[in-house]
Amino acid sequence: MQLEAYQIADHNNKLQEAHQRKLSYWTDEIANAETVIQKLIDFQIAIPSWALGTGGTRFGRFPGGGEPRSLEEKISDVGLLHALNQSSGAISLHIPWDIPKDGEAIKSLAASYGLRFDAMNSNTFQDQPDQPLSYKFGSLQHVDRAVRQQAIEHNIEVIKHGVALGSNSLTVWLSDGSCFPGQLNFRRAFERTLESLEEIYAALPDDGGTAPWKMFVEYKAFEPNFYSMTVGDWGSSLLFANKLGPKAYTLVDLGHHLPNANIEQIVALLLMEGKLGGFHFNDSKYGDDDLTVGSIRPYQLFLIFNELIDGMDRKGMNHATDLGWMIDASHNVKDPLEDLLQSVEAIQLAYAQALLVDRAALEEAREANDVVRAQEILQEAFRTDVRPLVAEARRRAGGALQPLTLFRQLNIRQQLIGERGHKTIATGL
Amino acid sequence: MQLEAYQIADHNNKLQEAHQRKLSYWTDEIANAETVIQKLIDFQIAIPSWALGTGGTRFGRFPGGGEPRSLEEKISDVGLLHALNQSSGAISLHIPWDIPKDGEAIKSLAASYGLRFDAMNSNTFQDQPDQPLSYKFGSLQHVDRAVRQQAIEHNIEVIKHGVALGSNSLTVWLSDGSCFPGQLNFRRAFERTLESLEEIYAALPDDGGTAPWKMFVEYKAFEPNFYSMTVGDWGSSLLFANKLGPKAYTLVDLGHHLPNANIEQIVALLLMEGKLGGFHFNDSKYGDDDLTVGSIRPYQLFLIFNELIDGMDRKGMNHATDLGWMIDASHNVKDPLEDLLQSVEAIQLAYAQALLVDRAALEEAREANDVVRAQEILQEAFRTDVRPLVAEARRRAGGALQPLTLFRQLNIRQQLIGERGHKTIATGL
Amino acid sequence: MQLEAYQIADHNNKLQEAHQRKLSYWTDEIANAETVIQKLIDFQIAIPSWALGTGGTRFGRFPGGGEPRSLEEKISDVGLLHALNQSSGAISLHIPWDIPKDGEAIKSLAASYGLRFDAMNSNTFQDQPDQPLSYKFGSLQHVDRAVRQQAIEHNIEVIKHGVALGSNSLTVWLSDGSCFPGQLNFRRAFERTLESLEEIYAALPDDGGTAPWKMFVEYKAFEPNFYSMTVGDWGSSLLFANKLGPKAYTLVDLGHHLPNANIEQIVALLLMEGKLGGFHFNDSKYGDDDLTVGSIRPYQLFLIFNELIDGMDRKGMNHATDLGWMIDASHNVKDPLEDLLQSVEAIQLAYAQALLVDRAALEEAREANDVVRAQEILQEAFRTDVRPLVAEARRRAGGALQPLTLFRQLNIRQQLIGERGHKTIATGL
Amino acid sequence: MQLEAYQIADHNNKLQEAHQRKLSYWTDEIANAETVIQKLIDFQIAIPSWALGTGGTRFGRFPGGGEPRSLEEKISDVGLLHALNQSSGAISLHIPWDIPKDGEAIKSLAASYGLRFDAMNSNTFQDQPDQPLSYKFGSLQHVDRAVRQQAIEHNIEVIKHGVALGSNSLTVWLSDGSCFPGQLNFRRAFERTLESLEEIYAALPDDGGTAPWKMFVEYKAFEPNFYSMTVGDWGSSLLFANKLGPKAYTLVDLGHHLPNANIEQIVALLLMEGKLGGFHFNDSKYGDDDLTVGSIRPYQLFLIFNELIDGMDRKGMNHATDLGWMIDASHNVKDPLEDLLQSVEAIQLAYAQALLVDRAALEEAREANDVVRAQEILQEAFRTDVRPLVAEARRRAGGALQPLTLFRQLNIRQQLIGERGHKTIATGL
Repeated sequence: MQLEAYQIADHNNKLQEAHQRKLSYWTDEIANAETVIQKLIDFQIAIPSWALGTGGTRFGRFPGGGEPRSLEEKISDVGLLHALNQSSGAISLHIPWDIPKDGEAIKSLAASYGLRFDAMNSNTFQDQPDQPLSYKFGSLQHVDRAVRQQAIEHNIEVIKHGVALGSNSLTVWLSDGSCFPGQLNFRRAFERTLESLEEIYAALPDDGGTAPWKMFVEYKAFEPNFYSMTVGDWGSSLLFANKLGPKAYTLVDLGHHLPNANIEQIVALLLMEGKLGGFHFNDSKYGDDDLTVGSIRPYQLFLIFNELIDGMDRKGMNHATDLGWMIDASHNVKDPLEDLLQSVEAIQLAYAQALLVDRAALEEAREANDVVRAQEILQEAFRTDVRPLVAEARRRAGGALQPLTLFRQLNIRQQLIGERGHKTIATGL
Repeated sequence: MQLEAYQIADHNNKLQEAHQRKLSYWTDEIANAETVIQKLIDFQIAIPSWALGTGGTRFGRFPGGGEPRSLEEKISDVGLLHALNQSSGAISLHIPWDIPKDGEAIKSLAASYGLRFDAMNSNTFQDQPDQPLSYKFGSLQHVDRAVRQQAIEHNIEVIKHGVALGSNSLTVWLSDGSCFPGQLNFRRAFERTLESLEEIYAALPDDGGTAPWKMFVEYKAFEPNFYSMTVGDWGSSLLFANKLGPKAYTLVDLGHHLPNANIEQIVALLLMEGKLGGFHFNDSKYGDDDLTVGSIRPYQLFLIFNELIDGMDRKGMNHATDLGWMIDASHNVKDPLEDLLQSVEAIQLAYAQALLVDRAALEEAREANDVVRAQEILQEAFRTDVRPLVAEARRRAGGALQPLTLFRQLNIRQQLIGERGHKTIATGL
Repeated sequence: MQLEAYQIADHNNKLQEAHQRKLSYWTDEIANAETVIQKLIDFQIAIPSWALGTGGTRFGRFPGGGEPRSLEEKISDVGLLHALNQSSGAISLHIPWDIPKDGEAIKSLAASYGLRFDAMNSNTFQDQPDQPLSYKFGSLQHVDRAVRQQAIEHNIEVIKHGVALGSNSLTVWLSDGSCFPGQLNFRRAFERTLESLEEIYAALPDDGGTAPWKMFVEYKAFEPNFYSMTVGDWGSSLLFANKLGPKAYTLVDLGHHLPNANIEQIVALLLMEGKLGGFHFNDSKYGDDDLTVGSIRPYQLFLIFNELIDGMDRKGMNHATDLGWMIDASHNVKDPLEDLLQSVEAIQLAYAQALLVDRAALEEAREANDVVRAQEILQEAFRTDVRPLVAEARRRAGGALQPLTLFRQLNIRQQLIGERGHKTIATGL
Repeated sequence: MQLEAYQIADHNNKLQEAHQRKLSYWTDEIANAETVIQKLIDFQIAIPSWALGTGGTRFGRFPGGGEPRSLEEKISDVGLLHALNQSSGAISLHIPWDIPKDGEAIKSLAASYGLRFDAMNSNTFQDQPDQPLSYKFGSLQHVDRAVRQQAIEHNIEVIKHGVALGSNSLTVWLSDGSCFPGQLNFRRAFERTLESLEEIYAALPDDGGTAPWKMFVEYKAFEPNFYSMTVGDWGSSLLFANKLGPKAYTLVDLGHHLPNANIEQIVALLLMEGKLGGFHFNDSKYGDDDLTVGSIRPYQLFLIFNELIDGMDRKGMNHATDLGWMIDASHNVKDPLEDLLQSVEAIQLAYAQALLVDRAALEEAREANDVVRAQEILQEAFRTDVRPLVAEARRRAGGALQPLTLFRQLNIRQQLIGERGHKTIATGL
């Protein structure tokens, strides 16, 4: 199904008066409101193809209905989101779950929804039915050269799919690690992984264009391996990225840390080193819980954006294009599309709040060791109700003032169920 | 397949000389060696039926071969374990994964292997294909009375299966909880769960026998719900158990705590309150990792046994029979049977070491605030190499001196693959 | 020093226009704005006497200047805070750091600032110079009856001081526990502690008045003991409170939990049981960091207030008077008075936001398992900028629109340094 | 006081028969027993001067008696330990707590006990009475160049003291960080710290000798700063060390990590990078608890030694001399000397067990993905009772078979109290 422009217009018209009242108040209160709105319009968050179906845990999965049954339907779902919020203008594919049979056709389809292809994701954490060798004991780290070769070739194939679709980055998340003390020679696992990554790195296209290919090395503290992970923290990821070369970067996923980690500091240091490549948004309380962005620790999210803006501005980076922004969540008890609407909005709110931070005053407070004032400056921004600015950005870009409300009013899920049935399971899950 | 007595005898004969040398040394060194050996012979650990197949995570599962395809084959596998170590003389079933079609026949089959039926486990954390109502939003806590009723009836059915098999306890593990702030009214979730448990409790058989039925209320800090669990810690479990009555107890699973929890203290307090009912053994580094018992924190396991013995002895409880002892692990990268052999041995070692603790001296040191001495007393026991005692206990009971070695020498897994095939998946997984 | 009414009036006058503009907007937007303002006026948070000086860690302490040198000066400092924000109308004393020589005089002095005496705090975690027996190995749990007796008598003395000052509650925080496995018999430590608490409980005055004395049993997961704490979690605290009787309650300190604990659920359960007695506010990232309230996890603070309001309303409890509200923080790098102003404001903001939650709609969403909507309802309230309401409540009560700004404009700290000197150290630290 | 040779001889004679019986058994059982004993004799662990007095927490300190009142008495205490165990042949000083007035005399005194000077420790986490500028807001990271300069000069002075004493390493532990979001510009804090470290690095002596000076950059996750630490994890420490140059190394303290960190993997990676410089031993359950080594997680300690041996052997490093080995604990409830005897023994046991690991078999198991076997190989070593080997190593080196027993039999603490008094407080605490 596809949204019609009039549906959004009708929705906005009904809410316009109340919206305008709030907006006027806040544009009066906030000096740089116009700048913020414009930056929000430019800021797009990629939707991963696997987030369009219901997720689950090892204990069970409780699917809803109307899940996309094909790559085309996944693109259609992201198109729907983008039509509603005008902020989800990219899709991130996962191979082999989303192998495009006809790259050009898929590219056109996406373009028809205003979507581009963000980072490509390879999968060496599962065995596919027709796969000759198993990843049970790792992929790029495997003791058997043949398994490593299989995993390397898979990644190179993913790059090729990416080239065909106009993507320009590859995210390598490895579940490689060990479940028990003794299982792994940590050093050799590192060295073998590095060697494998080097071969993949060598296959990155280099067309001298304006947006050269990047490789994102994602780290994770634990799960599915429960003793060690070979790319376990930002320290190891940065080691890999530095050894690989200028096209390799670290990717930060909010749920991939040990308890209490200071993620915003990690972000600042990686930006300092010029090695932050991308971001996976979600939220968590215990581990890699993959909850809706901003649902557990919205202030941490704001603090992370505060560092992102500071670090990117200092290097003259473009907020919208110079890092890979993606949601990576698992929707176990919510409608995936509703969850994604909430997640995108939470990201936009945090971004907008961070844009309100008076950076000159903050640096002044810091240089004076005025800890109280520094906190006030941050919380002044965080406590500001930026929802009207975010809504206005959506409106100006052609989206809905209240995407979630409209999603429900239009009975979109019910329509999808009508089209696709109750018992679908999104490919890959 | 079944082990022949001569196979064990041959194995033991070959190892007997070396074993005897070690044993003699240690029985000389350890005053109560004979008592320890006898207690080890009596001590039996139940094997859960679901632990006989390869486990997995939400990211994937890498099955081995020769997994049991039926309840009968699961019982056969536990029979094998028990033949090897003479310490796994019980099986804990999971309904609906292991519904016995003919209770009497199953009971006889188990008896033929020397096995009895330990606690029965109900399942309201998954939806079964033919199930009218979904547990997506909980079972005993559910807002809808009909869902609660369905879950109550399932538990009562499980009790009936247990009665048929000669079990006398029901373990209720609830995944009930919430994934997001706001989702749940904590109080009402508690009250509804209590009300549901009361109905199940009322269905516990009361035949006035020597081993009256018990209900174990298991707690877990997180997963599969990632914001709150309705039976989330020992405090809530004890609240439930106290409100339910004398047949209700708390069950402790080693992997179900927040980071750094002092589990041995929890054990001591629950025993003090007369409310510890049973134990699920495994090990973990991060969360409910379900690793091989003793593979990560063997000293913690010893400290727990130290409290178990102290608390049970004080109440005149029988180590072997007055608590429910069960392994609850997930074998993702090891052969399940090998993993279970390692787990049982780790439990026996910890139990034996804890039996060596000089309790009179320990209490004396405590009363004198002699912290250094108290630590020495515990570590004196822990550092003792009790492997020869454990081996001797197995030998005397008719088991193998080195079960794992024999398992491999006899090519048992290969034989099972021969019988059952490479691509089997244990029922329930 | 004391604030003059005209100083506040001048300050407010200058800010009035801007304040009024914001207030008008929000009172239009928020249906129950007037109710919220009134509840904010009624809500008072006690200041602990030890929080008026610079705190520190085992590694060092970096005092500022002008710290209060006596109980009188501590009261004066709280008086200052209360004059500024009209929300700190109580002080919580710590014995022996704040022994009043003349109870009546101290009571009058406090009354002159509009202050009452909140919970009294005993101290058995330190040895005082003239103390016969040491608490090195615990106090109420101690193996030596004489030490326990000394600690019991100290607590009874604290109650007497409280009676003289018009307080009606005693907070018992015990550092009792152990640093090493083996050191403590957990059960006996519990039993001895219980026995000791029973003697203190028996000494609680019972005058049949409208505000009968309460005993708050505070729990803490770790520190200063690093292996076990005898009152280590809400489960143990509740066990003690239930065994003690109706005047005993659990006290929750936000920093006293294991990593990732769901404190709001604990709050809900304790309220359900009628056993929540009081609250110590602070914030933390790692352990008992004792940071400014709301500086790390403001959303968690809001969620806690959401449960507090829900649970208290259901039992018909008075928000302002039926629980003990206190800040318990350590000001290591901020001016203590500024830190307290920020903390009180953070509490008020969370309280106000929680008062905005549409509870009927929330329950409706819960009963419909509408997780998305439930989250929206909570975040709708949390994202609302309630600062104008909080400022208005202060203004109406006679306080400053911007207490921190005024504190700085009036150079209050410099004046205190002038009065008291640069090198003062608050008594007790 | 000083131990006489005959006292040790008498003690050993009485225990010799029982010792010999155990030793004979184990030297028969363990193929490489002689090698292990020799390596144990060579292995020396430095004692930090501050560990000789009772430690404490921010809540209190409960001193024992007979604590050393001067640097000379601290050296004497380490001399005592070394006489007892012949494994504590080095002392690590802390400036300004241990400023030697006469370097040569102190050096001779130490030599008379058979002690050398291990790493020197600077202190910029406290303000000293006569110090012009405060470290309240950091030292090497401070926004004020003058404060940084003061801290740099202090470190250079510490190096000079070290040169005079024959030490050849400087440990820089910085408490620098922040307590609140906003307080610090992470990047500038890093850059300023780096710049300061570079100046200290430049002052390292370079005499072309066989043991060139090293700088150890210690990291810590939190405390005393509770929001961020500028050298917060091994990733940041390694960044600093790499930017500084070949003489800079990372130092690992067991208590300085986030919950659940895999320290053994960190050790392996740092050794791989040639950047592990030294080790601070202690144990912990919650944070930087600074408990007796091996008292909480002895298996983790073994796993760390397993990596140390593997990594050092591969690079041809000398176990005894190529890394800095030091205890860093706080003795809050134990006699400091007894605690140190327990700690040194725990380190020796872990080292000995790790020397028993059959490395060839382990690598073979790993290359075959035989996880079960790999675990068996490690646990085979860990479960071996190596106490007789450790005792024998002590005996051969001239130490006591049971140092703790002898310490008590000789009433050493009472003698020290006799000499020094009951109310001493070790300098620096």
